[in-house]
Amino acid sequence: MELKRIHHVAMTHPTGSPLLAALAGLCDLSADHIEAADGFIERMWGVGDGFVQTLEATGDGIIQQSLDTRGPGLHHIAFEVDDLDSALVELADAGVHLIDSIPRAGGAGTLIAFVHPSAFGGVLVELVEEPASH
Amino acid sequence: MELKRIHHVAMTHPTGSPLLAALAGLCDLSADHIEAADGFIERMWGVGDGFVQTLEATGDGIIQQSLDTRGPGLHHIAFEVDDLDSALVELADAGVHLIDSIPRAGGAGTLIAFVHPSAFGGVLVELVEEPASH
Repeated sequence: MELKRIHHVAMTHPTGSPLLAALAGLCDLSADHIEAADGFIERMWGVGDGFVQTLEATGDGIIQQSLDTRGPGLHHIAFEVDDLDSALVELADAGVHLIDSIPRAGGAGTLIAFVHPSAFGGVLVELVEEPASH
Repeated sequence: MELKRIHHVAMTHPTGSPLLAALAGLCDLSADHIEAADGFIERMWGVGDGFVQTLEATGDGIIQQSLDTRGPGLHHIAFEVDDLDSALVELADAGVHLIDSIPRAGGAGTLIAFVHPSAFGGVLVELVEEPASH
């Protein structure tokens, strides 16, 4: 599969973390897109042609679990692909362990799928297809 | 300070990790730049206008220490700035805890500096100035 770009880099944090103030105040970034999900708030901060994604735990769920087990910090890297269906078929054919074997809805109208971290030596990888591609 | 782009996202791994084969074989990337450092090998894999950076521990040092304490996976995010000297002065004036208070040589002719993860809620941030800027 062909990776078009680093779409975003995700970071987890609890409420009250200095992360949001650092991105806004020190780095002069703004949260271009904010979306509430089950147990967390996702914010997308544009940097160049990609994004920093912050994931704030607001209740029980996968982000709070990640904070509990691994602490706050880098969570996953997401790459943009043109055709997520094809990418997932290609990965499955190669025997790759997928968390999502079919695309599901992500933030801001995207389609997304996560690959199991075992495939990338411990790195959680997300694939993203932008609305314009589907 | 102004961040121009996500310059790279760094991942640590031991020798023999599936990470390199996954980047090359599954993602069709190539290691555009390879550099041996003290205790590790750094590879830069171009994706869009940024890079994935893999850090392979080859002996004692900061990468092996990171593998021992945190396991393999995402290590830091690096942003490009135009003027690293100015950025570090600005951060220091804001009371930010810097690991490198003055720029030092990075890979491929860059100047780099690391910010202490406490400033970004547990995320290790690197700032990079490209050779063209200095």
